[in-house]
Amino acid sequence: MLEERIRCRKLLEKLATPEVATASVKSGMNIASAGEFIRGCPSAFFKCLAERAKSGQVGNLNLWSASLFGHDVEGILAEAGALSRRLGSHGDPTLRKMINTGSVQCNDIRTEMLPYHVRCGTFGSLDLAVVDAVSITEEGFIVPSHVPVDISSYVEAARQVIVEIDCSLPLEIEGMYDHYLPALGPYMGEIPLYRVEQRIGTPYIPVQKEKISHIVVSELTKQGARSVGTDERSSRLAEHLIDFLQKEVREGRLPPNLYPIEIGLGNIADAIMKNLACSDFRDIEVFSAVIGDGVIDLIEAGRCRAATGTGLMVSDNGWEKFCRNINEFKKFLVMRPCEITNHPELIRRLRVIAINGAIEVDIYGHVNSSHVGGVSLVNGIGGSATFAANAHLSIFALLSTGKGGDISSIVPMVSHVDHSEHCVDVVVTDMGLADLRGLSPVERAEKIIRNCAHPDFRPLLNDYLERSRREAGGHEPHVLWEAFSFHQRLKQQKTMKI
Amino acid sequence: MLEERIRCRKLLEKLATPEVATASVKSGMNIASAGEFIRGCPSAFFKCLAERAKSGQVGNLNLWSASLFGHDVEGILAEAGALSRRLGSHGDPTLRKMINTGSVQCNDIRTEMLPYHVRCGTFGSLDLAVVDAVSITEEGFIVPSHVPVDISSYVEAARQVIVEIDCSLPLEIEGMYDHYLPALGPYMGEIPLYRVEQRIGTPYIPVQKEKISHIVVSELTKQGARSVGTDERSSRLAEHLIDFLQKEVREGRLPPNLYPIEIGLGNIADAIMKNLACSDFRDIEVFSAVIGDGVIDLIEAGRCRAATGTGLMVSDNGWEKFCRNINEFKKFLVMRPCEITNHPELIRRLRVIAINGAIEVDIYGHVNSSHVGGVSLVNGIGGSATFAANAHLSIFALLSTGKGGDISSIVPMVSHVDHSEHCVDVVVTDMGLADLRGLSPVERAEKIIRNCAHPDFRPLLNDYLERSRREAGGHEPHVLWEAFSFHQRLKQQKTMKI
Repeated sequence: MLEERIRCRKLLEKLATPEVATASVKSGMNIASAGEFIRGCPSAFFKCLAERAKSGQVGNLNLWSASLFGHDVEGILAEAGALSRRLGSHGDPTLRKMINTGSVQCNDIRTEMLPYHVRCGTFGSLDLAVVDAVSITEEGFIVPSHVPVDISSYVEAARQVIVEIDCSLPLEIEGMYDHYLPALGPYMGEIPLYRVEQRIGTPYIPVQKEKISHIVVSELTKQGARSVGTDERSSRLAEHLIDFLQKEVREGRLPPNLYPIEIGLGNIADAIMKNLACSDFRDIEVFSAVIGDGVIDLIEAGRCRAATGTGLMVSDNGWEKFCRNINEFKKFLVMRPCEITNHPELIRRLRVIAINGAIEVDIYGHVNSSHVGGVSLVNGIGGSATFAANAHLSIFALLSTGKGGDISSIVPMVSHVDHSEHCVDVVVTDMGLADLRGLSPVERAEKIIRNCAHPDFRPLLNDYLERSRREAGGHEPHVLWEAFSFHQRLKQQKTMKI
Repeated sequence: MLEERIRCRKLLEKLATPEVATASVKSGMNIASAGEFIRGCPSAFFKCLAERAKSGQVGNLNLWSASLFGHDVEGILAEAGALSRRLGSHGDPTLRKMINTGSVQCNDIRTEMLPYHVRCGTFGSLDLAVVDAVSITEEGFIVPSHVPVDISSYVEAARQVIVEIDCSLPLEIEGMYDHYLPALGPYMGEIPLYRVEQRIGTPYIPVQKEKISHIVVSELTKQGARSVGTDERSSRLAEHLIDFLQKEVREGRLPPNLYPIEIGLGNIADAIMKNLACSDFRDIEVFSAVIGDGVIDLIEAGRCRAATGTGLMVSDNGWEKFCRNINEFKKFLVMRPCEITNHPELIRRLRVIAINGAIEVDIYGHVNSSHVGGVSLVNGIGGSATFAANAHLSIFALLSTGKGGDISSIVPMVSHVDHSEHCVDVVVTDMGLADLRGLSPVERAEKIIRNCAHPDFRPLLNDYLERSRREAGGHEPHVLWEAFSFHQRLKQQKTMKI
């Protein structure tokens, strides 16, 4: 059985217990890894590392990863007080709390820029890469899990590599990965990827055997509670968006099967994919950072020609569907390093339609996708900025209100800007859609308030716009000292309503 | 003489007076052109068009251009009340006033996205492209001026083309241009440009002869008042930056001749180039949207290996230097369409070091480069967002104070965000430099206040940071209702000081 997973005989010598493997970790080290909330993480390794940290044997670690880890990696490390710095996005609530109280320093760097700069040595040298793997080939190369994300860059950059053979993952995942990293210049060539389904590399991560210090075997069954559902408001939003896309096709601005779509996780994303699956669109392509339940459903519905991403991040239900029919799904899915999926060259070349979520959008079209109330980081910016900036069409989708209607997602000024007005073409909510292309700021404001804001907040937003035009004027009128009045009311009166 | 400029006999038939040429312009038309503040614009055509508008014969025009036009194009059109909409950046103060009072609607779209979307038909069809040209070849192809910027995209997209043969420009400019536009997908190839000096296209803009409706000949001598000087504070800033670049080379993060540099116009840019010319750096490459006086000086100093941009935008002094030795300069200079110079694929591939100016920067590293006081548009975002987002190293350079010390360029929160914290690696002022890479927001704030802010404002900024950490907390602490207190004081008391 283990010979099937570790097919390079010589590397069987490196088999070690998690205790032995983690003993090579010293305080202050820079460690990188990859995975998703609940699966595809080297959790046997990190569980043991957290225990060592809890007992005071190691600490002050810097964790580098663009992955949204769950409790099993960064949660237990955070609880153990093992982390001093986190580069990249995060997924776990315990770590989030520590980032937001300043006990862990976090630099929320864009997804593809983290592994790129790690390879460049910008943040110093990487001591250790910890890889969750399905298997190791005859040559000693690593076949990563279904969530490779940024791991191959770390395998290349790290001085030491520890592999966790994850026996909870089906061996058939092998073949789904396409390993290719952009050369590091100064005079780099192009990335020879021109179609979503194209393979340009190897199905494994090449690595010098000597770099692999330990191989840990894990049979932990990983189960998560991430539930996915759709709600009526998300469905309405999806309908507005599909109507718009159909209009764009009718008027000749998009081809009949659209351009490749980037889309994230969650209810809105799944509702959009569900509506796409029931629409007239065929041969849809997905070029995305994450492959969620919606894409699995789109493939099952026979509407998806090809999909590529850095990892499969699905609910238990989606995982079951995938595992039941893995060889069929593999015909449609290619997983790639995030230095490829999130590369501006490819996003622009493939003319991606980027559909990203947001916390709030302001009347002029600036978007906050990372900081609640302007101050508290949630997950991080991920790949959204790179997709929005380089897409052929950049769409932001969010519900018009939150907290039972007390919060308006359309505000006078966003409390944090992740995407400026220049990278936002369309805003869509359950109320409707605003196509902002070619419009001046005031025209955009009128359209966003009219089409996207909840009626409860339209008068307040119009009042702000009118007074700003009168009192401040300018190209993008703002009464700066009232720009956050919605946020202030929410803080003081628990509602943005008057 | 004219036969030298219009070498295609057949096209001599299209010669017309500006009056005849402008008579083909109808109210409501979409018109695109290119040029710079003072030279390389089809100003005979636009002068006549403005006169027609003034006498009420034409109006309600939409001007599309990524160029910073001066008085001779958009100034006179604005004064004549001819414009209803402006897509792209602007350069003229009269038009600026109309944009900022809302009498001309402006969409300040990113430089390379405007011609791209015009070619895609996103904003409707382009009725007319007006080209400032040095000459027309035997085949009837257009040799554009020294400021082609986005004109070739418009020649491709427009239904009608009018050429202004600009006899004020030396014929020797011919050969400096390299025409290549990215294919329009859905499955586009790569852009085969791997080195700054490489030529991948033709020295002219191909065009069907039938599309050219009129050829106007102009001998207007264009002179401008744009003066360029250096001041002591800009020199200090430049010294901080050069020190930093030298340290990056010493520590192995940059090659000895750096990566290609993007840099804009103005005192700070020229001071940086001047200091570079006097430094140890050799074989410097420039991959930029504009080629200003600093690059001319760098070439003269023998320190520049190659430079490319969308146009030569220099002072009278720089223009004289260029014209005196044009064949020598042509060995170093290639002008390209902005769809190439500002393409994310190439900026990322060439690992450009982007050096951009700013109006204000906040303590966390967000940058405002377009809206004074958050409301009044100045010039526009231009190419800065695309360069900053895709650069290997993104640097923002600005003086620490303005208006005799009453304005701090470092503020608690910028009043408008063009570049978010994710696209800003380094901030440098006359006070010093802050390398923000890998730092958390609070660490960035401490560094920016300490290194970049003027001492007069450090206590106020530290006070804001401390109170925000105490009262609001979070990953990026802000007391939102005080975030614009600096701007409020400036408005009420004409100074940001207490």
